[in-house]
Amino acid sequence: MTIDLPSGTRPAGVDAAVEAARRVIDALVRSGDMTDADMASVTGRLNAVADDLEATAPPLRDRLVDMWRGDGMTRHDPVTGSENPIAPPVAYGAVDSSTIEGTVTLGLPYQGPPSSVHGGVSALLLDHTLGVANGWAGESGVTAELTLRYHHLTPLFEPLTVTARQTSVDGRKIRTTGEIAAGGRTCVSAEGLFIAKHPPRPR
Amino acid sequence: MTIDLPSGTRPAGVDAAVEAARRVIDALVRSGDMTDADMASVTGRLNAVADDLEATAPPLRDRLVDMWRGDGMTRHDPVTGSENPIAPPVAYGAVDSSTIEGTVTLGLPYQGPPSSVHGGVSALLLDHTLGVANGWAGESGVTAELTLRYHHLTPLFEPLTVTARQTSVDGRKIRTTGEIAAGGRTCVSAEGLFIAKHPPRPR
Repeated sequence: MTIDLPSGTRPAGVDAAVEAARRVIDALVRSGDMTDADMASVTGRLNAVADDLEATAPPLRDRLVDMWRGDGMTRHDPVTGSENPIAPPVAYGAVDSSTIEGTVTLGLPYQGPPSSVHGGVSALLLDHTLGVANGWAGESGVTAELTLRYHHLTPLFEPLTVTARQTSVDGRKIRTTGEIAAGGRTCVSAEGLFIAKHPPRPR
Repeated sequence: MTIDLPSGTRPAGVDAAVEAARRVIDALVRSGDMTDADMASVTGRLNAVADDLEATAPPLRDRLVDMWRGDGMTRHDPVTGSENPIAPPVAYGAVDSSTIEGTVTLGLPYQGPPSSVHGGVSALLLDHTLGVANGWAGESGVTAELTLRYHHLTPLFEPLTVTARQTSVDGRKIRTTGEIAAGGRTCVSAEGLFIAKHPPRPR
């Protein structure tokens, strides 16, 4: 059993809009040119939504200050963010005091080799998960070095488990390992070196 | 001077819809909760677009066969794909027979540390660019090992140059290096080992 980590999800309107945007992303990649959908109409409707959102969006600087407010999880990152349509999203649980685990099933937008997860998307998921494990373990920082080993192709359309564990803290050097597994088999493993440094938050 | 690589872009309707979807993604992350936009309406309009696209989308298997047809560049990947709203997208040019270079400016959806590119997004861009350099140099394969070194934070909102060069081919082992630079300064460097292996294309 894992304990759910706070995900930063609130019942705000933007989260539902982001979920709908994820459906649009998936359906566009799924359609490509193989569709009878009226793409000129789809384009017009999406641009109209973008126009409306842009007309009421806050100044960039204000938004940056707001999105980094507080010390907790952020809601905008490209892996877990409930405010970010690019995030699949991954949801994490704690396994023990230095280990976390997330689950996710990835679709066509994340494809590299045929029917497989893009190697760079696996790197994105692992870098982020190692960072979250550091935060959970109590000492975090910025990535200094990340090594990824690809053992087997990672499948699309199947549940993946993404695990990370902080293995040592030596002064400002933090070492963390992780892996992506599918059906109990390790597809990608990662080793990261992080430096306990925290870029200033906008204010 | 660089020579543009074929990007696979065609004047198809889907490309314009994907560009509009990228505007929606950016505007949603830009808005968050700091907006007077009617998010229930935005959600409904995006879900209606997704409904229409899903109703006319081809069966997944047919789409997979189609998207992998031919030997050229694909149009769906999450880094350059003109059919993929997640792709920033990066556009490449050839520098010499084994080196390519791409340019891209990344916005809020790709954020890691404040106002900086997510380390995992840099990994995604580099993994992909190393792979494209291999294709351009004439020997390509799947990623076996990728090592990333983070020298400086990579800025959002500024033009980035992503470069990759195939450095050696030894039997099935292909070695490739690359970097992301901003304003002439190397932010992230990468070394990749690829194995000349080509997963079968769906048919």
